[in-house]
Amino acid sequence: MNIYEEALKFHEEKKGKYEIKPTCEVKTAKDLSLAYTPGVAEPCREIHKDPSKAYTYTRKWNTVAVISDGTAVLGLGDIGPLASLPVMEGKSILFKEFGNVDAFPIVLDTKDVDEIVNTVVNIAPTLGGINLEDISAPRCFEVERKLKEKLNIPVFHDDQHGTAIVVLSGLLNALKIVNKKLEDIKVIINGAGSAGTAICKLLLSSGVKNIVMCDIDGVISRDKDLSHNIYMQELANITNPNNEAGTLKDVIKGADVFIGVSAPNIVSKDMVKTMNKDGIIFAMANPTPEIFPEDAKEAGIAVMGTGRSDYPNQINNVLAFPGVFRGALDVRATEINEEMKVAAAYAIANAISSDELTPENIIPKAFDLKVQALVAEAVKEAAIRSGVASIQYF
Amino acid sequence: MNIYEEALKFHEEKKGKYEIKPTCEVKTAKDLSLAYTPGVAEPCREIHKDPSKAYTYTRKWNTVAVISDGTAVLGLGDIGPLASLPVMEGKSILFKEFGNVDAFPIVLDTKDVDEIVNTVVNIAPTLGGINLEDISAPRCFEVERKLKEKLNIPVFHDDQHGTAIVVLSGLLNALKIVNKKLEDIKVIINGAGSAGTAICKLLLSSGVKNIVMCDIDGVISRDKDLSHNIYMQELANITNPNNEAGTLKDVIKGADVFIGVSAPNIVSKDMVKTMNKDGIIFAMANPTPEIFPEDAKEAGIAVMGTGRSDYPNQINNVLAFPGVFRGALDVRATEINEEMKVAAAYAIANAISSDELTPENIIPKAFDLKVQALVAEAVKEAAIRSGVASIQYF
Repeated sequence: MNIYEEALKFHEEKKGKYEIKPTCEVKTAKDLSLAYTPGVAEPCREIHKDPSKAYTYTRKWNTVAVISDGTAVLGLGDIGPLASLPVMEGKSILFKEFGNVDAFPIVLDTKDVDEIVNTVVNIAPTLGGINLEDISAPRCFEVERKLKEKLNIPVFHDDQHGTAIVVLSGLLNALKIVNKKLEDIKVIINGAGSAGTAICKLLLSSGVKNIVMCDIDGVISRDKDLSHNIYMQELANITNPNNEAGTLKDVIKGADVFIGVSAPNIVSKDMVKTMNKDGIIFAMANPTPEIFPEDAKEAGIAVMGTGRSDYPNQINNVLAFPGVFRGALDVRATEINEEMKVAAAYAIANAISSDELTPENIIPKAFDLKVQALVAEAVKEAAIRSGVASIQYF
Repeated sequence: MNIYEEALKFHEEKKGKYEIKPTCEVKTAKDLSLAYTPGVAEPCREIHKDPSKAYTYTRKWNTVAVISDGTAVLGLGDIGPLASLPVMEGKSILFKEFGNVDAFPIVLDTKDVDEIVNTVVNIAPTLGGINLEDISAPRCFEVERKLKEKLNIPVFHDDQHGTAIVVLSGLLNALKIVNKKLEDIKVIINGAGSAGTAICKLLLSSGVKNIVMCDIDGVISRDKDLSHNIYMQELANITNPNNEAGTLKDVIKGADVFIGVSAPNIVSKDMVKTMNKDGIIFAMANPTPEIFPEDAKEAGIAVMGTGRSDYPNQINNVLAFPGVFRGALDVRATEINEEMKVAAAYAIANAISSDELTPENIIPKAFDLKVQALVAEAVKEAAIRSGVASIQYF
């Protein structure tokens, strides 16, 4: 059996990857009188008097909905809500396993931005946080922006920010190896969808000055007609300081870093050879990267990461989102801001000591629970420092 | 400590009564490749090809949302969604404990009928069924009707139908004791809200001919101006065959059964004395019933039930809803219809053998899991018989 046949059998046996369990016994009349009527009336009254008590008497403090409309699922595209449910269930159990967050999937039978926003706002009283997942660009930007405006609990589109955090963490360590600084490097990001856009913004927040973005129509610059897409216009305004033009092939010349969130095999060895000495490549198209590590190495690249678990330096969101939410929930953060994301990236990077750091080991293993704890701590501190924590634990 | 203080302490310690647990391990890269990427792509593809496969590869088959807007919570009234959350969490764990149904609470930040309906329809792909809870009348009728029209999964307002099922089960056994028949009795229902309306309709479905309903404005009859409320008009058309008028005091004369879902202490001993011989009273106002059992007995009542656990014959919804949903989910019923509700009531009633049946023992104990299994079986059979089962297990 290959992995797909095996996974199908696995899913058929499990009939769903999560279940709801009571945290208390309900076996006797006494149990029932405490957990349900008549006793339950008392926490209801207390929350009615002081809504913040919902964090004391219910599971709101630890509950996250994994929300998708199924429009941009894995490499599968717009397969609809029902078919996306196995992914959202998987994500939910990763939340529990790696962050002790109680997450359940909510897949939505609408693609309309305002319908999505209204629906999520309507169910929000139940939730301590919202993880948006696999919603296609540019709708995902609008959904996230509107939800952040309307809600005072964290709203986090993992395809954007989870990816960006792990990319930044890898970049921080790769730069230590090649002895370059964020502010000096030229970075090419190929792919201006949800992940590419978020990576771009997080790198800018972290001190990178020269980012050039490309998409299927070539380099994004201020000379280009981008009137069809306000998100592209914004990117054109904040990137490409030298207003370079052309295609990926043109701008990759002299770049220090190539980050691909695009399509298989679109970077050739010849293109890599035009990059600066000690180049870094994160080729995250999945399962077939923009260029394979063997080829990139042959062409002289110093540090290489992919989205795959069978090569070194896997850029895997699971390193970020459980700890990020754990930290945000623990201080009841009202949002997950840039400071918290940058802090998460540094925590992941610093989980690898200078002794352990090699070109094949810039990103910790996804299963290291120690890393999640470090991320959670860093995110908590950053939330407090940046003034978005509504309670303080230290 | 009284029960309320104890319940508050209990809720503070638990910090929420449910949690989400994986049904599988996610400890190794192999686990991750099966439960998440890349393996998860295969069940996604299968569901995309055949949506019914969502019942095979995800938890949809067993997932119920307990949905409320917090407008009619216990005896507390309109306390809002957040303050209703402890009740909905309690209900969710009863679903698991008594029916092995995975239920999670969704409390809604809107009271608008169409907003509620849209929101629930939008999140429905996740769900195998919907339990509406503590939504005030008459909005609850409209919400339920519209959801049933739009969805092909069971939608069940427990305050209505759960209560009605258990009342009917108690009535079936009480009538055995007094040796009367459904079609011969005169029933007074006091309270024309969600529970009273549903009880009325289920008794009519079961063969009762003469029901007179009262509410705060007196007897509901076809001579009354009910233009303000289409639900009252409907009740006037289907009840009160002799078109009796007046107040509760007038129509209770000669009644065989009084069912109260109304207010404390509104039935006097003198009123009870005007009822027919071998009268039956279910006084379900909580915690103070319409008349206390001691007084009703003194006034000559043969069989008496209340909503309280400290008197015999507690009319407790928990006897119905877990088994009803278990049965409906097991045959993937597209709705929960009258036949299924009547079947559930007979199953509960028949769980007490003729040997065990006494005036103090007409309703089984809430904690009897055997009863839930009988209810589930009966509901499954009724779903198949009435043509709403979309798969058949036997």
